[in-house]
Amino acid sequence: MTDLPQTHKPKTPVLDRVRIPADMKGMSDRELRQLADELRSETISAVSETGGHLGAGLGVVELTVAIHAVFDTPRDKLIWDVGHQCYPHKILTGRRDRIRTLRTEGGLSGFTKRSESPYDPFGAAHSSTSISAALGFKVAADLGGDPGDAIAVIGDGSMSAGMAFEAMNNAGHLGKRLFVILNDNEMSIAPPVGALSSYLSRLYAGAPFQELKAAAKGAVSLLPHPFQEGARRAKEMLKGMTVGGTLFEELGFSYVGPVDGHDLDQLLPLLRTVKARAQGPMLIHVMTKKGKGYAPAEAALDKGHATAKFDVLTGVQQKAKSNAPSYTKVFAQSLIAEAARDDKIVAVTAAMPDGTGLNLFAERFPRRCFDVGIAEQHAVTFSAGLAAGGLKPFCAIYSTFLQRGYDQVVHDVAIQRLPVRFAIDRAGLVGADGATHAGSFDVAFMANLPGMVVMAAADEAELVHMVATAAAYDEGPSAFRYPRGDGVGVDMPERGEPLEIGRGRVMREGGRVALLSFGTRLAEVMRAAEGLSARGVACTVADARFAKPLDQDLILQLARHHEALICIEEGAVGGFGSHVAQLLADAGVFDRGLKFRSMVLPDTFIDQASPEAMYAVAGMNAPQIEAKVLETLGIAVVGLRA
Amino acid sequence: MTDLPQTHKPKTPVLDRVRIPADMKGMSDRELRQLADELRSETISAVSETGGHLGAGLGVVELTVAIHAVFDTPRDKLIWDVGHQCYPHKILTGRRDRIRTLRTEGGLSGFTKRSESPYDPFGAAHSSTSISAALGFKVAADLGGDPGDAIAVIGDGSMSAGMAFEAMNNAGHLGKRLFVILNDNEMSIAPPVGALSSYLSRLYAGAPFQELKAAAKGAVSLLPHPFQEGARRAKEMLKGMTVGGTLFEELGFSYVGPVDGHDLDQLLPLLRTVKARAQGPMLIHVMTKKGKGYAPAEAALDKGHATAKFDVLTGVQQKAKSNAPSYTKVFAQSLIAEAARDDKIVAVTAAMPDGTGLNLFAERFPRRCFDVGIAEQHAVTFSAGLAAGGLKPFCAIYSTFLQRGYDQVVHDVAIQRLPVRFAIDRAGLVGADGATHAGSFDVAFMANLPGMVVMAAADEAELVHMVATAAAYDEGPSAFRYPRGDGVGVDMPERGEPLEIGRGRVMREGGRVALLSFGTRLAEVMRAAEGLSARGVACTVADARFAKPLDQDLILQLARHHEALICIEEGAVGGFGSHVAQLLADAGVFDRGLKFRSMVLPDTFIDQASPEAMYAVAGMNAPQIEAKVLETLGIAVVGLRA
Repeated sequence: MTDLPQTHKPKTPVLDRVRIPADMKGMSDRELRQLADELRSETISAVSETGGHLGAGLGVVELTVAIHAVFDTPRDKLIWDVGHQCYPHKILTGRRDRIRTLRTEGGLSGFTKRSESPYDPFGAAHSSTSISAALGFKVAADLGGDPGDAIAVIGDGSMSAGMAFEAMNNAGHLGKRLFVILNDNEMSIAPPVGALSSYLSRLYAGAPFQELKAAAKGAVSLLPHPFQEGARRAKEMLKGMTVGGTLFEELGFSYVGPVDGHDLDQLLPLLRTVKARAQGPMLIHVMTKKGKGYAPAEAALDKGHATAKFDVLTGVQQKAKSNAPSYTKVFAQSLIAEAARDDKIVAVTAAMPDGTGLNLFAERFPRRCFDVGIAEQHAVTFSAGLAAGGLKPFCAIYSTFLQRGYDQVVHDVAIQRLPVRFAIDRAGLVGADGATHAGSFDVAFMANLPGMVVMAAADEAELVHMVATAAAYDEGPSAFRYPRGDGVGVDMPERGEPLEIGRGRVMREGGRVALLSFGTRLAEVMRAAEGLSARGVACTVADARFAKPLDQDLILQLARHHEALICIEEGAVGGFGSHVAQLLADAGVFDRGLKFRSMVLPDTFIDQASPEAMYAVAGMNAPQIEAKVLETLGIAVVGLRA
Repeated sequence: MTDLPQTHKPKTPVLDRVRIPADMKGMSDRELRQLADELRSETISAVSETGGHLGAGLGVVELTVAIHAVFDTPRDKLIWDVGHQCYPHKILTGRRDRIRTLRTEGGLSGFTKRSESPYDPFGAAHSSTSISAALGFKVAADLGGDPGDAIAVIGDGSMSAGMAFEAMNNAGHLGKRLFVILNDNEMSIAPPVGALSSYLSRLYAGAPFQELKAAAKGAVSLLPHPFQEGARRAKEMLKGMTVGGTLFEELGFSYVGPVDGHDLDQLLPLLRTVKARAQGPMLIHVMTKKGKGYAPAEAALDKGHATAKFDVLTGVQQKAKSNAPSYTKVFAQSLIAEAARDDKIVAVTAAMPDGTGLNLFAERFPRRCFDVGIAEQHAVTFSAGLAAGGLKPFCAIYSTFLQRGYDQVVHDVAIQRLPVRFAIDRAGLVGADGATHAGSFDVAFMANLPGMVVMAAADEAELVHMVATAAAYDEGPSAFRYPRGDGVGVDMPERGEPLEIGRGRVMREGGRVALLSFGTRLAEVMRAAEGLSARGVACTVADARFAKPLDQDLILQLARHHEALICIEEGAVGGFGSHVAQLLADAGVFDRGLKFRSMVLPDTFIDQASPEAMYAVAGMNAPQIEAKVLETLGIAVVGLRA
């Protein structure tokens, strides 16, 4: 472990006494405060070794302690939305001994995960699912399923997604006892409300529950003038937020807050009160600060959202140097280049400006870039409207999140043949984020849509050309996919040149076997081809570029002139290889015999590891491709490493 | 046309002068009122001949006239949400001569459709897309695209979907001039507000725009007492609604209303005022009555939502008699039978209790049935929560609408292996609703999810068994699909018996060709097999039952013992046939040659027609299956009808 930054193992006498939340039950509030401080130190120490989502966890340290102290987990179901903030929760729920394995192969997930602990009753990773799930648990409890309360903790960003609104709307209608804790970490851009909310919180805690709201309202006029001003500003702030108390009340929720989420003297009595008295659905509005209590995180622009390993004392992160730009950055720069030449090009992201690289586009073309929030459904149909209005929208969404807008892709884009360009980042396996973020299904669910053009970049230079292709192609919708991470280091073209739609390219020619790659496995396929050549098996390698429309001429030629044709793609069955099989069947190629194989992602959800390790599990690295070819040809396989 | 009900061709002197909305420009308000009356008569007359969505259109007759009279369509983009209500709009926009072809093959679509008219700038059919699209048009106009205003008309039901919330949230943030007309047809269950809103509307119309709201508020105290009571009740009604003025204002919209949507003396001045003065996004709350002005529709429980052909004078509908129950009803009855034996079974629908048959389930088990509104995302994850809490949820969603919850199926159900049962109604081609409602993609997007069990019923008896199978299978998620319409009339089992997971069945045995059916094409396949036998081509027919897990033994046996293996399914490429191809490739079957074909839906969106005619277009009726077999075998095809 000599390559790790110097760690700062904190002293944690109270935390050391907590293996599971039940161990907190006898603790005084003073001990709980101490526990929170130690939990914060332990979280910082752990993430300094593993990297990961630091700021979110630090923002909810006190909330985590308060919920576990007051509620009876795991009987009560605590559901963290998204799950970025769950590291302190994991430390308190029997997983402290493994917390330094976060996001590594075989280690703890960076999100909540049912298979990992009974304290994770519902896994997460995509946003805005927690209220729906919590409501399900509560209804199940009422109908003879697992008993207990249900508590969803959801951030203000996640609350903007339509799904959260749908769940609130349904929960308000059903009227069941349900706790939704709004973890509002916009505090830094709003006036401090600590004094007032501290006052209100004490009032809440003492008053019978049905009087809470009245007490809160009355309290304002009892306050001295400066506090009244604070109250007024607090109310304005609430009104100015996308969501606020009134909105929740219109949806059928009781609302309490805002309360200082870093003050256990507020949180504990408030949670005790609502636990004792709540009858229907309740929204508890908690103000927190991302990165709280760790100066480097608080000072960072992103509040330490996701970090590499770092030195605890200085906060300096260890970042690996790369020889090639990331695909995301190549996409962004290519799109900027196209947009400089064509003022009809606009860009849309659903709350992922940094992740998609569109922050760079927005800097250059602020009026032509739209961040619609966590709202993939709207992002797609908004893009369809932009296209119908005559613009050329690039809708940049991760493969896994595009699943959220699938109906809109079908109904609003494909059926209407509107030229929306889908830039599908994070295609294929993604590494530390694991199965929930894998981009496995997009080729299958996009390529069977009539009129959709579907491309995959084999390397970062290809991505440049595919951006140009999408920009130039205006007859209907198109999509191009590319992976997370850095390119392979190929020479970059001066500018993108539109590809001919539905034309692949031959990378090398050989006599016996044709390897047909779709996407960035091409480099592994080339390596495999070299290895096979060395064994005397001559390989043709082609890059399909398009899953739709297929390059029929190329594929039928490959089939005709080779003993075997093997497809490979970073996606599940039903995608590129299935379209090739359909073509070959229709053309009668199988009638006369062809050693056809389609290498796709296996029929499992693959756990987190490095992308290389995940592709090894998937059987898609060069040695495995070699082995597949040899096996297909009936050649005994010896001496191949998996 | 002697089989049509006696029609009642109305006299329409004013309507006869309107070919396109521009023809309305010189008309007086009195003439516009007359126009609305005639438009209503014409709509009733047309739908009496065609069947279709009558109530929705009748509810917006005056609104349709007012919008086209005040705004400048098609330069201004008028977007009808869902589109059920667009028949009067079609009559006014150059399509009156074809209005009696609604929903028939080659005729007008029952929804708005871009390819049909420039007055349909954005097609619809699924709900809640209109605000996103309108915002796209408006942003495009501001960036040099098509100029003009954008107006979305959206019903109160559609407004409950998360997607509409996402769009409102984004529109409020962008602050652009945009008109969202909330067509609120809950009027019948709330006190009448005509007198008040008429008064308020005149105030609105006269006042400078920025004073509108103030005027509206002040107006209440100026009213005589009974009206004040009415105003108070109206306000309460608004607060009691899921959405209301305050909510819209918190999302950044200016709000005006409610206004009587059947009173052109209110609508015309209001729309003229907002058109002249609005700067940012504006929510115009219009109260209407579904079925308005046609007594049989107003009296119907569903307000004439969707109707068969009917007699105009009596309202009596022509309903075709069927020899077999509908699949929907068989599903509902089977689920009721299972639920009577297992109190853990619960059911979830997203605003489709009648369409899915769950209204019957709800009658029997009101506490165990959940209609969550138009909220497929929530429906799926709520179901996942119910399953995690120990219940056995059946989540009944049409194939085409399940696309709305796809990410939730992947992320919340499949990855967690939660035993949610998806009852996928309207699988395959659906007839009069056309391409937007086709259930074409579910097999592809469900069957490549690890751990998902995917079944398709070959007939209504099979559906009974599949409901029992899903009820019994508790190890992970499962799905079963079945079509719209009536069963084939097979004998029904006394009770459902769980099928062995991943086992198909052989229906008939023959030597040369194996036909492997997945779903209700089985009847056509059996017919084809008979025809082929008569020609001397002996066929085996098997019903796969499962697309996942595949019955590998059965399929490999079929491949081994036949010259040809032909799959057929009511779905797009990437589904059942693709999984079979993957199996055959992996097993090396293609190496030695096999005449394999996979008959899937063609790579086009198929327009409305009868299901039979649509399947003829798709090439999936018995004669076409016969032809496919003969072609595959290299036998000259003569004398086959398409």
